[in-house]
Amino acid sequence: MSESTHENRFDVDAEFSIGYSHRLTFTQNVLDPSNPILASVFGAERCTGDTTVLTALDSEVARLHPDVVERLNRRFSEAGMPSLSDVTVVPGGETAKNDPTVVEHLLSLVDTLKIDRKSTILCIGGGAVLDAVGFAASIAHRGVRLVRIPTTVLGQLDAAIGVKNGVNRFRKKNFCGTFAVPSAVICDESFLPTLSDRDWRSGFSEAVKIACVKDAAFFDRIEASSTAIHDRDIVAARPIIHHCADLHLRHIADGGDAFEREEARPLDFGHWSAHRLESITDFDVTHGEAVSIGIALDTCYSHLDGRISREDAIRIIRVLDTIGLPTSHPSLGSNAMLEGLEEFREHLGGRFTITLLDGIGRGVDVHEVDYGRVLEAAAILPEILTG
Amino acid sequence: MSESTHENRFDVDAEFSIGYSHRLTFTQNVLDPSNPILASVFGAERCTGDTTVLTALDSEVARLHPDVVERLNRRFSEAGMPSLSDVTVVPGGETAKNDPTVVEHLLSLVDTLKIDRKSTILCIGGGAVLDAVGFAASIAHRGVRLVRIPTTVLGQLDAAIGVKNGVNRFRKKNFCGTFAVPSAVICDESFLPTLSDRDWRSGFSEAVKIACVKDAAFFDRIEASSTAIHDRDIVAARPIIHHCADLHLRHIADGGDAFEREEARPLDFGHWSAHRLESITDFDVTHGEAVSIGIALDTCYSHLDGRISREDAIRIIRVLDTIGLPTSHPSLGSNAMLEGLEEFREHLGGRFTITLLDGIGRGVDVHEVDYGRVLEAAAILPEILTG
Repeated sequence: MSESTHENRFDVDAEFSIGYSHRLTFTQNVLDPSNPILASVFGAERCTGDTTVLTALDSEVARLHPDVVERLNRRFSEAGMPSLSDVTVVPGGETAKNDPTVVEHLLSLVDTLKIDRKSTILCIGGGAVLDAVGFAASIAHRGVRLVRIPTTVLGQLDAAIGVKNGVNRFRKKNFCGTFAVPSAVICDESFLPTLSDRDWRSGFSEAVKIACVKDAAFFDRIEASSTAIHDRDIVAARPIIHHCADLHLRHIADGGDAFEREEARPLDFGHWSAHRLESITDFDVTHGEAVSIGIALDTCYSHLDGRISREDAIRIIRVLDTIGLPTSHPSLGSNAMLEGLEEFREHLGGRFTITLLDGIGRGVDVHEVDYGRVLEAAAILPEILTG
Repeated sequence: MSESTHENRFDVDAEFSIGYSHRLTFTQNVLDPSNPILASVFGAERCTGDTTVLTALDSEVARLHPDVVERLNRRFSEAGMPSLSDVTVVPGGETAKNDPTVVEHLLSLVDTLKIDRKSTILCIGGGAVLDAVGFAASIAHRGVRLVRIPTTVLGQLDAAIGVKNGVNRFRKKNFCGTFAVPSAVICDESFLPTLSDRDWRSGFSEAVKIACVKDAAFFDRIEASSTAIHDRDIVAARPIIHHCADLHLRHIADGGDAFEREEARPLDFGHWSAHRLESITDFDVTHGEAVSIGIALDTCYSHLDGRISREDAIRIIRVLDTIGLPTSHPSLGSNAMLEGLEEFREHLGGRFTITLLDGIGRGVDVHEVDYGRVLEAAAILPEILTG
């Protein structure tokens, strides 16, 4: 090897950072002419050229609120508002993330409607539609602005707050996606009364999750409100939804790892089995239900692991049950379920890490899972509240 | 409208930032066992779990360097190196960006080879292959690590330094893409001697561009070396390549707008017509050649606009010509060409902005273009050096 092999080496290292602002607003009747929020969001976004807005509307929202398109047209024809180039209806639920033509169609609209990087895609819908539309927006022209109006409990307290998007590929949840910060998130409470009971309840498992991992006092409040939440009492539910969204946003902004480049992901508590359960049941189980079952499983596992008392484990599982969420599933002990642990490791990358509970409000990262104990937890769950 | 319409408003605004480090190294014979750079890059990246490397290899590099696969296998079987899961050959040149199956195939390999977020995709090739592979890496699992080994002059002084990737859709350059910072960029000079004359020369138009916009002293150095560059004198070319890469990286890191959210994009000087020329000639004109023609056109326009002296305009065009780059094209005055201005506006979004020259080394943003003057510039160009 000649001395000259590595001559002329030249190194440049550079550090830089990108700043983001994340704006979250809870309101009611955002499409009413007198509601100032849309105007302020688009006013703040307005650039010197003409800008347009492409709206992607969840088919379920379109069905439940047939006047939305007309109200959008009226709102965006007001002075000072950008023009509305189109309202495209996106299939609601996991179909949005499973069907590759959804992203393709959005990209083709960006092309034909000449949506540019200073234009905005406004997405109105549930978490799955927000995820798929957000992915399309993030790759078109290397990122078109996105304003999210989540219309479900799950969307308002969790999915729409996050800085992630994604679609499913190769039968894997969120196989393709990006980290992208929305221009604004506007949570409109007036969409919630039309949700089915099932969709209403499905949202609260993520609130129980973040309380279990981070905030014991919040858990107490959810516990005290669990019957009222079950009964769809918005006055009781509202502060739970707001506080959960706030916790979630602060975790992203203050946690120092918004784009999840480190291994700890405390907000994934209960999620390894949840993702798997959704896919092996072909999404018959909603994400919120699957998370509820996953919380119950990992809480029970944490108890068997000597981390949390039986009383506290039962409190957690009882809160889920009182809200009306499932806490067990026949597939939990199957091999297909356990394979989900491997799939989760692959998605996260690197050292296997899941979050368990050292008590209510005290999530802890662990790097080993005892498969036998998972099966034991799965076997105990169906009777834990009655046994 | 009831007073209660907007009650229960709740706002949370959060600011956060994401830090990036960008590591660039120029070396020779990076695949030699004695070259320490790959080991240091993968050593620094190594996480606690097992990691693997998927290599995407430009078909043109595979053709010119048939021993690369064997050398990769040998290098990655050394102690302390991650394991090489596969070497997949990607069609070189613009095909990589035009053919959607390229990204699809890479995603399917990420799936079947279980490439996770702590694994790495190593891309060896020219700018177009780096762009397409980088896009696939950035969306798989919301971003798999990417190490780039650019093998062309254009890649080493420009494309591989950037924090952008992209593929072409709807016959539009870079319609889909993301901003993503590579884990490392390793420029290996030993790939350059096998380039065709055309590919060698094509790289230097980006050096002329950045000099014209930012660095008059650098322009003088390129001018003094232009005959030597034409003659493929690596000793003369090396400092030009290094300085250009350094300028490019510093522009990204210190410019305060790495992800191009503001309107000024000085590094796009000469590019509005270049992108268009590539697409209307079906990529018969290389990117580097198209940029050379675009620089000549916008330099001539800048002169007709009273911004730069005829002498300085001619110096710029003569440097391109001396290096062996084209400075005119029969399509320049066509309507299809002028439509490129609109397409460029759409891709950038918002107010139309192009960069012109107020002198050598002094780029200036302008927001209006006189189509008649573009045609005049296009008409003058073919004879400007002889007339």
